[in-house]
Amino acid sequence: MKFTLLKTDQASGARLGELTTSRGSVSTPTFMPVATQAAVKAVGPDSISQAGAGILLANAYHLHFKPGEDLVASMGGLHKFMNWGGLIITDSGGYQVFSLPNRTIDEEGVRFKAEKGGQPVLFTPESSMEIQRKLGADIAMAFDECVAYPTPHPYAKQAMERTLRWLARCKKNWLDAGGLETGQALFGIVQGSTFSDLRKASTEATAAFDLPGIAVGGLSVGEGLEVMNEVLSHTTPYLPVDKPRYLMGVGLPEDVLAAVDSGMDMMDCVIPTKYARTSVVFTRVGRMRLDNAQYRKDKFPLDTSCGCDVCGHYTRAYIHHLFNAGEVLGHTLASIHNIHFYMTLMADIRKAIQEDRFAAFKTDFLAAYLRSDKKNRLVR
Amino acid sequence: MKFTLLKTDQASGARLGELTTSRGSVSTPTFMPVATQAAVKAVGPDSISQAGAGILLANAYHLHFKPGEDLVASMGGLHKFMNWGGLIITDSGGYQVFSLPNRTIDEEGVRFKAEKGGQPVLFTPESSMEIQRKLGADIAMAFDECVAYPTPHPYAKQAMERTLRWLARCKKNWLDAGGLETGQALFGIVQGSTFSDLRKASTEATAAFDLPGIAVGGLSVGEGLEVMNEVLSHTTPYLPVDKPRYLMGVGLPEDVLAAVDSGMDMMDCVIPTKYARTSVVFTRVGRMRLDNAQYRKDKFPLDTSCGCDVCGHYTRAYIHHLFNAGEVLGHTLASIHNIHFYMTLMADIRKAIQEDRFAAFKTDFLAAYLRSDKKNRLVR
Repeated sequence: MKFTLLKTDQASGARLGELTTSRGSVSTPTFMPVATQAAVKAVGPDSISQAGAGILLANAYHLHFKPGEDLVASMGGLHKFMNWGGLIITDSGGYQVFSLPNRTIDEEGVRFKAEKGGQPVLFTPESSMEIQRKLGADIAMAFDECVAYPTPHPYAKQAMERTLRWLARCKKNWLDAGGLETGQALFGIVQGSTFSDLRKASTEATAAFDLPGIAVGGLSVGEGLEVMNEVLSHTTPYLPVDKPRYLMGVGLPEDVLAAVDSGMDMMDCVIPTKYARTSVVFTRVGRMRLDNAQYRKDKFPLDTSCGCDVCGHYTRAYIHHLFNAGEVLGHTLASIHNIHFYMTLMADIRKAIQEDRFAAFKTDFLAAYLRSDKKNRLVR
Repeated sequence: MKFTLLKTDQASGARLGELTTSRGSVSTPTFMPVATQAAVKAVGPDSISQAGAGILLANAYHLHFKPGEDLVASMGGLHKFMNWGGLIITDSGGYQVFSLPNRTIDEEGVRFKAEKGGQPVLFTPESSMEIQRKLGADIAMAFDECVAYPTPHPYAKQAMERTLRWLARCKKNWLDAGGLETGQALFGIVQGSTFSDLRKASTEATAAFDLPGIAVGGLSVGEGLEVMNEVLSHTTPYLPVDKPRYLMGVGLPEDVLAAVDSGMDMMDCVIPTKYARTSVVFTRVGRMRLDNAQYRKDKFPLDTSCGCDVCGHYTRAYIHHLFNAGEVLGHTLASIHNIHFYMTLMADIRKAIQEDRFAAFKTDFLAAYLRSDKKNRLVR
């Protein structure tokens, strides 16, 4: 994997880059749709690809239990298994295991009982790396401890320091397996909750591992956009310039713009598909909740400015009907549109950076997007 | 609408024909996937069309309540509303209203309470025709009384005779609106339960209405293949030769073959998509239930002889995983495959009739299909 920084915006931290692997290239800033269980919910890979997505996020925790990394490996890896020709990044499972009830953490790893069957399971930095290697992800994430929001400083410090010790073990495991030669890159993850001293220390220490990329974790966990921006301001100054920077779990369009503004290159979130399944679609003039009766007779496409297949062929009235009638095709169509919306937003962001007008683009986008969002009573 | 009978098989009743409308042509025998609520469940119209389907069945009863025929009309009709470029036939709602609890039938029509809200509703031959006209179906079905299986002779006779009186009202309503000039054809429906005298009388009387097509109703209601064949043998001799013949609600592949054998031209059934949602897929060597553990590591496509997109790109193991993980993409992929299976079966049937080898095709198909079906413990 190679990252090329093509341009840095003069007026902000926004960056234009390219992530290149033997499997293909992805222009950054990029948004990665989520395929937790080796499938983007309700959408086939052709539609994802047509929407412009080049990289998906899958999950080591979920895939370990269903269908298991050995099975995926025997099927020729995750790309072939799920018929996805683009890149795949896998989350390490850190976020998932720390969200479990009754898990215990010690220096070795995290112990918990399997959801199905209840047998004891131990996730360690080494086992997470092994799972991700067998899945065949292009980019593996280090096994980290992601703390809840809010967390007291002493525990946030302890978890951040443990994350660094675990990162050393992840890196050793990765190098022992062959490092970049295996075709899989490893990204470390910055933690430190909302504390500026911890974020600075974590960022500097994580950067010192000199891995192919670096991620910022522990955000988008309920802290809100303002706090996220504050934390990013204590993090990004210490991130390496020449490495791809991944902000995990972000987010809404306004969050994505803030992340790009602060110099992040990669983002992922379930929002486009999760919201779609509740009939919420994104448009340039705000969100709409399609199951609302106001759309019953609406002859317009979801977004009059959108070029996606769904907007080319269906009315809001039809999508409203599908949700009203309980037809899962509504989930599919709304998801395809939302992914297309995010991909178009990213393409427009990249074009704006290229043309030295990112700040103006962000201002204009948010003015149109947030104004109507309020009108539709879908304020955040 | 025009029907051209191209060929009749020498060794059976099988017929090759073409149904032509201003919207396009469909070769018969044809199988019509079901889009009850203006959507084939979990599958978009592009996939349906790519699978080879040229005509879909929608439902006047369901669409009357959601989203309402006036809304569909204001959207430019059902084809445009659901983005379907092929033909659409609508069922009259007769089958649905007679399946309701606490409905009462009199000469005027059927009275029942709306599922949502509970307000009293009256469906009549005239209202059903009006609904189907507003929906804009290429073919409307007469409003009939479909009796349950089994039904005593006296009631079957009474319902069959009422169906004929209602057919006269449907035909008058259709002619008053402009008849075929409206772009909508009307098919009468033969009833008579399992009684040969009633079937003969109903067929002769329905044929005498000289409508653009004729349907055989009241079958595939639990009577089984043997009884269905018996009833068809008392029906088909009296059907007009030059009109398209539609066997309603049929069926499994073996039922479809029997229907073609007896001279039917059109069939519809929810089976391809309904079975798909329970992970049951059709193959030339029988059915498979994909959520069965035996497919967990199966690297084969669903059907090794199938040319559909799903079989070209996915393993049984992946589809098994999707069902096991609760991913609705499994419904979509299995449904696309099953529709493709039915469409390929129909194309092969038409080719066999063309080449004077339908009987051999049917024998060979069933030998391969039913043998393995038993092996998989999915016997009927």
